[in-house]
Amino acid sequence: VTPTVGVDLGGTKILAVAVADGGEVLATTRHPTPRGSGPLLEAVVDVVAELTEVAGLDPATRVGVGVAGLVDLEGVLRHGPNQPGIVELDLAGELRWRLGERVVVDNDANCAVRAEAASGAARGHADAIVLTLGTGIGAGLIVAGTVVRGAYGLAGEPGHAVVDAKGPPCPCGRRGCWERYASGAGVARMARDAAEADRLEAVLARCGGDPAAIRSEDVVAVARTGDAEAQAVLDEFAWWTALGVANLAAILDPSVVVLGGGLIEAADLWLDEVRRVVPELLVGSEHRTLPEVVAAHHGVGAAALGAALLAAEPA
Amino acid sequence: VTPTVGVDLGGTKILAVAVADGGEVLATTRHPTPRGSGPLLEAVVDVVAELTEVAGLDPATRVGVGVAGLVDLEGVLRHGPNQPGIVELDLAGELRWRLGERVVVDNDANCAVRAEAASGAARGHADAIVLTLGTGIGAGLIVAGTVVRGAYGLAGEPGHAVVDAKGPPCPCGRRGCWERYASGAGVARMARDAAEADRLEAVLARCGGDPAAIRSEDVVAVARTGDAEAQAVLDEFAWWTALGVANLAAILDPSVVVLGGGLIEAADLWLDEVRRVVPELLVGSEHRTLPEVVAAHHGVGAAALGAALLAAEPA
Repeated sequence: VTPTVGVDLGGTKILAVAVADGGEVLATTRHPTPRGSGPLLEAVVDVVAELTEVAGLDPATRVGVGVAGLVDLEGVLRHGPNQPGIVELDLAGELRWRLGERVVVDNDANCAVRAEAASGAARGHADAIVLTLGTGIGAGLIVAGTVVRGAYGLAGEPGHAVVDAKGPPCPCGRRGCWERYASGAGVARMARDAAEADRLEAVLARCGGDPAAIRSEDVVAVARTGDAEAQAVLDEFAWWTALGVANLAAILDPSVVVLGGGLIEAADLWLDEVRRVVPELLVGSEHRTLPEVVAAHHGVGAAALGAALLAAEPA
Repeated sequence: VTPTVGVDLGGTKILAVAVADGGEVLATTRHPTPRGSGPLLEAVVDVVAELTEVAGLDPATRVGVGVAGLVDLEGVLRHGPNQPGIVELDLAGELRWRLGERVVVDNDANCAVRAEAASGAARGHADAIVLTLGTGIGAGLIVAGTVVRGAYGLAGEPGHAVVDAKGPPCPCGRRGCWERYASGAGVARMARDAAEADRLEAVLARCGGDPAAIRSEDVVAVARTGDAEAQAVLDEFAWWTALGVANLAAILDPSVVVLGGGLIEAADLWLDEVRRVVPELLVGSEHRTLPEVVAAHHGVGAAALGAALLAAEPA
């Protein structure tokens, strides 16, 4: 009966939805993300005002906000890699000062997992993992029916778990983080390495001959033409994705692992390979029920929808 | 008021305790583990009978059993690496047939975590990880106050999460499992590698010059004399232990990580190094509250005590 507003505060765009009690989306809006914490906060206030008017909502409508990065239990963005220069921003406090106590804040992937659990690919699963394979890796974990927050709210960052201790350096300062492989940035990096080893001619041609210009989209586009070298890069991506999925399954034993994010649009080129490799990399796989590995149901709107569901949860 | 019996069914010994409602140990017994599933089941029946008599317990006293390996939600030992030849043993069913419905079964590390949470180093922590660094790695995970079982009961096996994809082969069939480093077997393996590279003279001398004969106990004993090369192996062990602790902290954000098992008896030689390295390997460590990394409170009896606590839980 009571609608809520969900806001996905991304590095490049703010996506917001008004959602009815039953999950129906009443209105959607999208704006570029401004730079700097002041303009960022004002933009969220404006988006909420816009949706309130468009959807004819009560001014006291509860608001959920999802944001990339380390968000603690108090709604403070401790470290936001996608929001340059923003650290230790009390997002919940600042937004409550402007919008009232009706605001709740969580990590964007923790919002996305709520959307998949409520009405997506994780529906009916008490133990589920939702991974967003975009530029990096976002993760939302559900254990025994509840989203895992951890002692301080910072749980769910397997993208920076190390899977290859002697692997390539990660901007985070470590080496061989899972995100260096199982993400859009990972595909681009593996493709650049292949190009510098004189492979991937067709991808290079598409990028003006400059290995540094290769993006994951280029690899996908060329693999789709049947190019074996581009497909080999996606096979490598799939192997590493399966490795991290198997690691998480060894630790949490979910019944489903949901894969979303930009790369899932090319699932036909790599998802079956992930499914094939997971049993090879999961301990005792011949003696256990394997997790289903499936594509996300909700697309780019998953985090905003989930933020609206977060706002509807009892405080 | 009502005592329970806890049984730790290990690869070499069966350790059992009778525990009063308040956690006080009333009686303890210890027997070698027989080979084969029939003798194994009979040995558990005998141990329960022995404790019932010694401690003057009611014949309907509830019994908890902890066992190493993959134990599913129905109490079936799907795969028990420490019990050669035993797979798909319906431990709960077989023991209930012999002892009645009063029997419950879980993984031994899931029992140990209950002991540390109730009266040990994880007491008061709603989000905690207990790692038993023995021959391999046992793990019990507590999230939001509850032991994580997973969809099928097989959660909590980070020892077979891959941390070094191109690393040494593991008997499980993968490469670079965390257990290849952060365990007694890992210390022995790293020491053998060092010895074969003409280091570790003092450890080799202690083992009759045979690298294959080196055990983790030898490395610890020689490091304790101040030997720099033996200490370097323990530093390497500490680094890898910290890597896995940081990976688990990135995923679950616990407030405490409890380290137990045989190697903890030499904690003075390596635990501070683990504490020093974890912040280097944990994402956003400068923006978060780090988990405490502490030694286990309960010793070899942790799993038996925890099994008794499991038996006391409401079904």
